[in-house]
Amino acid sequence: MLPLYCRKRILLLGENLSRYLQHSSKHNATTGDGCDQVSLLLRLCEERHFISPDAFHTRTCVYGPLGTELKKNILEQWWTAATRSRARVFGINTSVHTRTCKESVMIVNYRTVQENLQQDSFTTEEALRLFFQNSMSVRSNLLQGALQQYIQALELVSRKLPFGLAEIGLCHQSNDQSFGHSPGCLSEVTESSLVWFCSPRTSSQWMDYWARQRLQWWRKVQPDADIDCFALGPSDFSLCDVVDKDLKDGTLRGIKVLYKFPWGLETLETLWSLGNTELQKTYQGTHSKLQCRDGRKVVVPHVISISGDMDKGMLAYLFNSLKQLKKTDSKQKQQTVLKLHPTLTPVKVALDMGRGSNSELRQVCEGLLQEFLEEGIPTWPGYLDTLPLSLENLHTKYDEMGVLFTVLVSETTLKNGLLLVRNRDTTIRETMHITEIKGFLLRYMYASENL
Amino acid sequence: MLPLYCRKRILLLGENLSRYLQHSSKHNATTGDGCDQVSLLLRLCEERHFISPDAFHTRTCVYGPLGTELKKNILEQWWTAATRSRARVFGINTSVHTRTCKESVMIVNYRTVQENLQQDSFTTEEALRLFFQNSMSVRSNLLQGALQQYIQALELVSRKLPFGLAEIGLCHQSNDQSFGHSPGCLSEVTESSLVWFCSPRTSSQWMDYWARQRLQWWRKVQPDADIDCFALGPSDFSLCDVVDKDLKDGTLRGIKVLYKFPWGLETLETLWSLGNTELQKTYQGTHSKLQCRDGRKVVVPHVISISGDMDKGMLAYLFNSLKQLKKTDSKQKQQTVLKLHPTLTPVKVALDMGRGSNSELRQVCEGLLQEFLEEGIPTWPGYLDTLPLSLENLHTKYDEMGVLFTVLVSETTLKNGLLLVRNRDTTIRETMHITEIKGFLLRYMYASENL
Repeated sequence: MLPLYCRKRILLLGENLSRYLQHSSKHNATTGDGCDQVSLLLRLCEERHFISPDAFHTRTCVYGPLGTELKKNILEQWWTAATRSRARVFGINTSVHTRTCKESVMIVNYRTVQENLQQDSFTTEEALRLFFQNSMSVRSNLLQGALQQYIQALELVSRKLPFGLAEIGLCHQSNDQSFGHSPGCLSEVTESSLVWFCSPRTSSQWMDYWARQRLQWWRKVQPDADIDCFALGPSDFSLCDVVDKDLKDGTLRGIKVLYKFPWGLETLETLWSLGNTELQKTYQGTHSKLQCRDGRKVVVPHVISISGDMDKGMLAYLFNSLKQLKKTDSKQKQQTVLKLHPTLTPVKVALDMGRGSNSELRQVCEGLLQEFLEEGIPTWPGYLDTLPLSLENLHTKYDEMGVLFTVLVSETTLKNGLLLVRNRDTTIRETMHITEIKGFLLRYMYASENL
Repeated sequence: MLPLYCRKRILLLGENLSRYLQHSSKHNATTGDGCDQVSLLLRLCEERHFISPDAFHTRTCVYGPLGTELKKNILEQWWTAATRSRARVFGINTSVHTRTCKESVMIVNYRTVQENLQQDSFTTEEALRLFFQNSMSVRSNLLQGALQQYIQALELVSRKLPFGLAEIGLCHQSNDQSFGHSPGCLSEVTESSLVWFCSPRTSSQWMDYWARQRLQWWRKVQPDADIDCFALGPSDFSLCDVVDKDLKDGTLRGIKVLYKFPWGLETLETLWSLGNTELQKTYQGTHSKLQCRDGRKVVVPHVISISGDMDKGMLAYLFNSLKQLKKTDSKQKQQTVLKLHPTLTPVKVALDMGRGSNSELRQVCEGLLQEFLEEGIPTWPGYLDTLPLSLENLHTKYDEMGVLFTVLVSETTLKNGLLLVRNRDTTIRETMHITEIKGFLLRYMYASENL
């Protein structure tokens, strides 16, 4: 039988996972392993403050402190890769409300509808019109917003191709495949979007270029494969060609970045080569405004749209970093470590106390914490937790949180200033003087950022 | 008569500004100065890619590349001040959809409503019920989300007070005062929220503490007052006590952080001392779950909510950094500079070309740009602009963009490697060797971050 927390999370993680879990609970003997991994990660996400248990009532992600910082770090890395490190990509911030009427998700002031409906008698048509008048369309993706900024952006680049517009923002999508939901249930997604404008003659090469770039990015923050762990290699991220044939004007070429979750492949990011039709639709009848210079020629650019689901991306990184190490020196058979990349992991250092005079050790911890936070080192104030844990349980806890270093203040520290510092990845404990720890951590963080 | 771009922006900046502009256009002779400043900033925001002209059709902010980065920088500073630099404040990320029914803004799948309404005949009540069933409430602030995370957060702090939950997120508000809008018009706001849980006996002191902290934060990123400029001092940010008497259970104490815009005072951030009623409402009938330790006593904490409108905050910083310098050595009477704080300003360096062999200079620029971007120095590729500008016009452009340093590559650079580097704040131009510039910029950025 499936554990309760597995079933509860079905809503959050989508239909594919839920089918997988139902399947594996039926054939428990054969597929137990993957399901174990899923249950393990889900328990860990809840217990270690990545995802709030509340999240499972709705289709939306509610994150705890660690999940919030992890997501922020992922978005920051994406933003740097997509715009801050590129001369010809500009960041924009558009509105959730759109002017296009294609979207089916709308936002409305309920009180206004209520008042209006109660005032008069009305026909169905009138009711719908009334409703429509008082509501605004809400975007389901970021493409339209970028296309609407195209004309302004031309100024920035003196009408010279290629260039791009990047944005990260919240989108609302309606899930028409109902699965345990009322039909038309809504979900919110943090989407990343890069819309690339290029000359028609190079759009095919650009498509390949961006697909490679995006795959490389997803793989980059992959932890190194370790010999003595069940390494989930970078090969879990892959590309796949897709074609959209459901179009009046021919077919569209697309490429997807996929991640192999235990329950199957899911799309993290999608690239579409859209030609110039979407751009022309947005600016009907004003083709001359759209023109750009491509060398000496004047062209209407082709559009490549690259959009990612960053909530799913975060789950991919969580699954990808989950390692179960065999333990030889302990009663526990396996040790679980969340080997998140140093730049992504939400907590770099945990500060905790060993045995000794409680109030004195706490003072040392508070001093160190202040010093670390002032230097911008994300630190977990573990000493605030009043439940005493054995050293082994302490390491288990911090390994599951993906904490890079555990710094232990103990009686010894009060005597001679020595701290015990444990590395998540090597599991080696070393002593270090209290005056050296800050510099050590800063050097490590700086080095890992420049990978 | 008011210039067109002033009138267009009324929608964006709210009723107070619009009344002010109408008033000053009537009494132009007496109040010309403030209106000039408003028109100037609005023109600058549009021309220099801070705010998109599109934004003025709706009540929502659409930002260009500079506005997007400025907002990101402000949010980053807020996040660091509120949570990353504090041991007892944890970041969270909650859903836009709320479970509370108090909110009047709802999100709905229009197609579902349409299908259902067309199927059958129905009464007004049925129509409303149908509508209600297919819609979800959308948050108008972040307080409820934080209160719902309270129980989980207790684990993090071993039920010990005080602690806080911080979040930055999009909220949807209905503007019931209609002003050139259909009644019940909706606007979107990026809100910052810190919800602080403390012992009832210290809540009044905490209220004062946080008010001081918040005022200090708003003032911190204030540029130094310059002798030869119309300095808008830090005194433009102020505190003001407010009382909400519209309550069944007595009055609430509040404090507002205000900014003095040319058209009057506007609220940037609001602190409310909420007692424990909101918390108890959220967890009806489960008071024992809410209890925390305050020293040796067990109490239900008091809640202080601190919420800021970060879009308005961004406007405050833009107005606050706008300086008009008198020019003695030029035909222009005044020079406009956006003296944004070095950590906030979206572009730190602009790279441009002087006269000389175009293709060779461009190569040098591209090399430098790559070097700067790799080091994380936000750089504007000014050399991409093919409109040739005089040196004076170039400086005007970059001053209006708030760019800290303008680096000019010229014929001289090709000969002996020397660049011309101009400082926005001192307006001093100095020559520097091409091998030294990166280190110089990094040192400057590092120093200004550690103010």
